[in-house]
Amino acid sequence: MMDHPFDQAMTLGVVGDPAEGRFEGLPSEYYWNMVGPYGGITAATVVKALMQHPQRLGEPIALTVNYAAALSLKPFTLTARPARTNRSTQHWTMEMTQHDDQGQPSVVLTATAVTAARRSTWRQIDHPMPTVPPPEQVEVARRAKGVAWLDRYEMRGIDGGLPAVWDGSGEHSRSLLWMRDTPARALDFLSLTSFADLFIPRVWVRRANRVPVGTVSMTVYFHVGPAELSAAGSDYVLGQAQAQAFHDGFFDQQGQIWSRAGHLLVTTHQIVYYKE
Amino acid sequence: MMDHPFDQAMTLGVVGDPAEGRFEGLPSEYYWNMVGPYGGITAATVVKALMQHPQRLGEPIALTVNYAAALSLKPFTLTARPARTNRSTQHWTMEMTQHDDQGQPSVVLTATAVTAARRSTWRQIDHPMPTVPPPEQVEVARRAKGVAWLDRYEMRGIDGGLPAVWDGSGEHSRSLLWMRDTPARALDFLSLTSFADLFIPRVWVRRANRVPVGTVSMTVYFHVGPAELSAAGSDYVLGQAQAQAFHDGFFDQQGQIWSRAGHLLVTTHQIVYYKE
Repeated sequence: MMDHPFDQAMTLGVVGDPAEGRFEGLPSEYYWNMVGPYGGITAATVVKALMQHPQRLGEPIALTVNYAAALSLKPFTLTARPARTNRSTQHWTMEMTQHDDQGQPSVVLTATAVTAARRSTWRQIDHPMPTVPPPEQVEVARRAKGVAWLDRYEMRGIDGGLPAVWDGSGEHSRSLLWMRDTPARALDFLSLTSFADLFIPRVWVRRANRVPVGTVSMTVYFHVGPAELSAAGSDYVLGQAQAQAFHDGFFDQQGQIWSRAGHLLVTTHQIVYYKE
Repeated sequence: MMDHPFDQAMTLGVVGDPAEGRFEGLPSEYYWNMVGPYGGITAATVVKALMQHPQRLGEPIALTVNYAAALSLKPFTLTARPARTNRSTQHWTMEMTQHDDQGQPSVVLTATAVTAARRSTWRQIDHPMPTVPPPEQVEVARRAKGVAWLDRYEMRGIDGGLPAVWDGSGEHSRSLLWMRDTPARALDFLSLTSFADLFIPRVWVRRANRVPVGTVSMTVYFHVGPAELSAAGSDYVLGQAQAQAFHDGFFDQQGQIWSRAGHLLVTTHQIVYYKE
């Protein structure tokens, strides 16, 4: 049996001593976007390196990835270094490079992460899941054509989908949709990371104007452990995203991802370049 | 005339060749918290290093600081490296160290940032300022005693202040307050960064239970240029913060900071350790 395309895309080879946290990989054509791979896949690859690192303590709590340049379809090197290890938390610094046209390593991504050994405590969800119809009653969303990565996901849009006409008629910047891997795949920290970047650009929704965009930095906070992941299984998750400010070339996006049962699995934020 | 305490706290010395981006400083007693300096000051110090760096391109767009350990009241070294410089954006990696008890450099903070040369574009604020009374009609908030940094800020609380009794009676996690430096000081990227961490811990508001807490990672997105900063002057800004999820030892906070005129200057997020 072939691995799931997502797991194929996550394949990393260890370079040298595993304790040095040096990995090699190749961007996946299955998740290719217009220029470079889908950003959510690149972010998930960073988490994959963490999960493979022999010195990792606990599970991912926070991740920030900075997209410094579009990746090319050639090998990359990814280094992950535990900058500080405390009793129950660990701080990570990551960097991804590819060779430039002169054969020199060039930084294409920087990242930081926090992992931690969680303890059971008081719990509370203060951003409850909106009331929505179940995924089975929502149609598969219209989507852009000609990019591979969109075939890797099933998206059932409730609000704020791809505008039917690009006529500048947008009224708000909120999107709400059910999402799932195609084919379905059990949720883990890697797929949750990739889902965090799954929303179409807020500026397209807000303006119904397809201006050029590119995510510059994304942060993901995880509010799950193995029990919540196991309970969510390979079911649909509900994603919501909204912008707060568009200002002189950069807008923000805040997002939430809930399990069908209403557990808030992930909160996420990103800042995105836009032209015009 | 003495410098403002905030500017004194921001003092950094250049070590060696300025192009190497190596700075030295000392945490400020004026902004001391219970254990270590107030986190907002440490984050602002990282931005100060960026602003002083001779290779900096443009202005801050995004900042993520990871608090790896509490700073001691002794000198620190802060390095800032432009990992990648593009035509209009620049990606930064920062690290702060202090000597440990054995005299070895030990990482106390990691950070990444993006700076950019902004261009004038279409603008929109999609998270409008809540309707609130002006700061002159709001009383100065009750506050914790015995920590220096609280004397450096004026906070006029509208909602979600420090609970009057710690009786577990909390009902929501939102705080809303006017804030300003004491004495007043013209807003800049440094003070906006420090304001982003000014909110009392969400878990205290939500539970009316003063459990131990510590911010692990904070991200700040800036939606301002020189014109908006100049217009806001040294006036009060309105801050709002709210948690979305409390789960097994970590909760998130999302926040907004508006100028009195309603410009959304900053959006910010953090993830915070809590005990019990």
